[in-house]
Amino acid sequence: MSEAWPTAITEIQPNRVAVRGYDIAELMGRVSFGAAVYLILRGELPSEPVGRLMDAIIVSSIDHGATPPSALSARTVASTGASLSQSVAAGILSVNRHHGGAIEDCATSLRAIVRSVEQGGHLAAAAAGHLDQLKVSGRRMAGFGHRIHSADPRTARLFELASEAGVCGHYIDAARAVEAEFKGQGKALPINVDGAIAAILCELGFDPALMNGLFMIARVPGLVAHVTEEQSRMRPMRKVDPVNHVYDGPESRGLS
Amino acid sequence: MSEAWPTAITEIQPNRVAVRGYDIAELMGRVSFGAAVYLILRGELPSEPVGRLMDAIIVSSIDHGATPPSALSARTVASTGASLSQSVAAGILSVNRHHGGAIEDCATSLRAIVRSVEQGGHLAAAAAGHLDQLKVSGRRMAGFGHRIHSADPRTARLFELASEAGVCGHYIDAARAVEAEFKGQGKALPINVDGAIAAILCELGFDPALMNGLFMIARVPGLVAHVTEEQSRMRPMRKVDPVNHVYDGPESRGLS
Amino acid sequence: MSEAWPTAITEIQPNRVAVRGYDIAELMGRVSFGAAVYLILRGELPSEPVGRLMDAIIVSSIDHGATPPSALSARTVASTGASLSQSVAAGILSVNRHHGGAIEDCATSLRAIVRSVEQGGHLAAAAAGHLDQLKVSGRRMAGFGHRIHSADPRTARLFELASEAGVCGHYIDAARAVEAEFKGQGKALPINVDGAIAAILCELGFDPALMNGLFMIARVPGLVAHVTEEQSRMRPMRKVDPVNHVYDGPESRGLS
Amino acid sequence: MSEAWPTAITEIQPNRVAVRGYDIAELMGRVSFGAAVYLILRGELPSEPVGRLMDAIIVSSIDHGATPPSALSARTVASTGASLSQSVAAGILSVNRHHGGAIEDCATSLRAIVRSVEQGGHLAAAAAGHLDQLKVSGRRMAGFGHRIHSADPRTARLFELASEAGVCGHYIDAARAVEAEFKGQGKALPINVDGAIAAILCELGFDPALMNGLFMIARVPGLVAHVTEEQSRMRPMRKVDPVNHVYDGPESRGLS
Repeated sequence: MSEAWPTAITEIQPNRVAVRGYDIAELMGRVSFGAAVYLILRGELPSEPVGRLMDAIIVSSIDHGATPPSALSARTVASTGASLSQSVAAGILSVNRHHGGAIEDCATSLRAIVRSVEQGGHLAAAAAGHLDQLKVSGRRMAGFGHRIHSADPRTARLFELASEAGVCGHYIDAARAVEAEFKGQGKALPINVDGAIAAILCELGFDPALMNGLFMIARVPGLVAHVTEEQSRMRPMRKVDPVNHVYDGPESRGLS
Repeated sequence: MSEAWPTAITEIQPNRVAVRGYDIAELMGRVSFGAAVYLILRGELPSEPVGRLMDAIIVSSIDHGATPPSALSARTVASTGASLSQSVAAGILSVNRHHGGAIEDCATSLRAIVRSVEQGGHLAAAAAGHLDQLKVSGRRMAGFGHRIHSADPRTARLFELASEAGVCGHYIDAARAVEAEFKGQGKALPINVDGAIAAILCELGFDPALMNGLFMIARVPGLVAHVTEEQSRMRPMRKVDPVNHVYDGPESRGLS
Repeated sequence: MSEAWPTAITEIQPNRVAVRGYDIAELMGRVSFGAAVYLILRGELPSEPVGRLMDAIIVSSIDHGATPPSALSARTVASTGASLSQSVAAGILSVNRHHGGAIEDCATSLRAIVRSVEQGGHLAAAAAGHLDQLKVSGRRMAGFGHRIHSADPRTARLFELASEAGVCGHYIDAARAVEAEFKGQGKALPINVDGAIAAILCELGFDPALMNGLFMIARVPGLVAHVTEEQSRMRPMRKVDPVNHVYDGPESRGLS
Repeated sequence: MSEAWPTAITEIQPNRVAVRGYDIAELMGRVSFGAAVYLILRGELPSEPVGRLMDAIIVSSIDHGATPPSALSARTVASTGASLSQSVAAGILSVNRHHGGAIEDCATSLRAIVRSVEQGGHLAAAAAGHLDQLKVSGRRMAGFGHRIHSADPRTARLFELASEAGVCGHYIDAARAVEAEFKGQGKALPINVDGAIAAILCELGFDPALMNGLFMIARVPGLVAHVTEEQSRMRPMRKVDPVNHVYDGPESRGLS
């Protein structure tokens, strides 16, 4: 028989399921899902305010309507008579470099800028230099500007919650320096929700390679909602137009 | 041009993303992810205690170690050099009737029992009658007993939290009646974590067809953790033994 | 150690790979891919003309342009920066009841009609009776009529090749009886390519549950072509319009 | 309305489906599936012997038993109650760099060696130099040697059929030069089936990026066979051991 292979995630024993050492039954009702996500991905429980921040991050990405490719591919597959898991999987297959990947790309850039500063550079120069490098290699800075949102309130809210949780530092500074550099160049490219998440996750010490995973975790409820709406409301094999749709849900309302 | 197709989930406007009418920026930091999941799937925000209960439900299913088929297929695909989204999608593809589906199957049974009682039956007789029906048709009652756990503390904790949230009623009663009937037959088949979730979700008015979706939402963080562990710790193309593994993570520890 | 689990498909020995008992090295160059598909799915090699017929069947379904949901979901996923296998998998996920499934549904109907005849019915009456049954239960006969093609030359060609291979019998007769019954009702619903494949596969003894598998086998080259075209020719994250496209490939040409 | 997007693969008109300009109805019965695959991927029909060679290539990879990750993930997903397309898709998700990808990696190496020779190098030196480069960068040459097969008859057969089709040239020479160099180093690493396919596909002018696509095309029948065997023969949720299985199909037999 081959040697037992190791895993450090979850221990299963009779009447005990422990994630990274913590009994799930003890976590239930005491930590939020966002905190449990942090625990299973990072190995340690976050502080209580960071747990709340994690919830805010994944709530911010829970859905973005019917036109992202993940919603479209999930609905297209659902329209063929597919099962729920099969349709949601098609949505997950769409979360890659160009969809969700801006968080990882932006984080990689912020880390490069912070590294420059640590090696003795000035922040503004490091930000400008990085943008130059990207331009030379034909790439663009991820996490800034948005096709639809010029001042995304999710961004402001994320930074507010990060500040309340005491999360601040070089990566958020670097993001602001990039925004200032763009402004200085006459470009209105404010930090968008992906850029804010990238900066905050860098502050929290997340590996960029995990960031698209967080986006998947956040987006699955949206995908389940799109698939079940497609299955219950639309006829099979319809042509899912990627643009021409209309929202007919509840009107705008506020938390009481 | 074809007519615009309707969706009632999320409205995208410049500088505003609203789920079921609520601005996400306003939800962030005010409601937990579990509450946001309830909102996007059901159309309304839950009460605060029900939101906490939703978090507990999805925390309870965040992972179950390395041997469920979702973890194994995600790891097997990851071992071929697949991307994160591709590997997680393979895990999602494993969430079906026989994996995760016990929640839906149990809910369907509990609803049948409650319907019998509503039509004038006695609860114990309705439970016994349903078990007889299942046996006659060669099926078994889902959500009771467990291969590994004889008294799963997650079950007790779920009912405790449900009780604190004021969630109780005919479906939980029906689950207890089934457990009692099994006991009367000399069978130690207590309500397991799937059965407890099924009963509570029935009390909350969830459609059984959505329940496997909740399981997917809960399990994605576990799948992301398994895939990243496979990618970072194991060599490519290893044979992923579905049984012979060992936990080498943090030792048992309690919440302070 | 658990007992070895059995498989009857392929035996691997040092310097020998044998499918259903036949050394692949011996099959190569002697049987077509269509014949090898028949072998691996059915367990026996087909006669040489039936092998050719199998090739014709899978050639007939190799692609149907850019608008079927399998092509659209594969392209949508590819547009996010996905790998080839990931994008092709999204296409495969779309092959279900409403896409590809007409072959299986039609075969099930033809088998019901043939069973009626075997129990003493007349063919025309059995066909009419089956159409009545479908109508009563709100279903429609699969494999007849087409949104685009009124006289699909693939259908005629398939029956011609079947006839050359000596493949004929009750199932093809049943399909013709259904077509005649529709005509008698004043409906122009000729046997389409799915219906012809269904009838021929029934004659060859294929289980209906395998028929969607044959469709997947046939369609993968088309999906690979769509994904590589998307990757090489289109920009990432474009909106893949499910209708508004134009063919700009080689002009119509004939085999010399 | 947005502009129509272009595709050069298949033209759909009433009563005509044309792949790369050829009416499918005319192709059926006249060209093999291998030739049709060549057509849809390359844009032109192959000569008749090259069409036969294409069939031999995809027949050679139709299955490799129960232990490759594609078969294991497809079976694991099938064991949860998944549909056929969902299970086959899980298999396709496993075709990546480390599974199937040896063909592309080997082709990239052979092209590098041929480029060296074209720039004035001697073949043996170019082969040795490339192996040195790989070693320095910690990679190994793909397409040579095999865990199970020391003299794979599929390799010899492929070169025999290539020779019959008049397919020969620098890439096959380069593969033989690598084999000779390994032998000179005292290593028994003969060209394996992936290496032979890589060399032949290079001779035929295939882009390496397409080669994993050909492997997917070839392997889907095997995946369909594994999934249907799993569904019909094994109990749900079994642990699919990746090693310990036994072949119990037809005994070794020859083509008559």
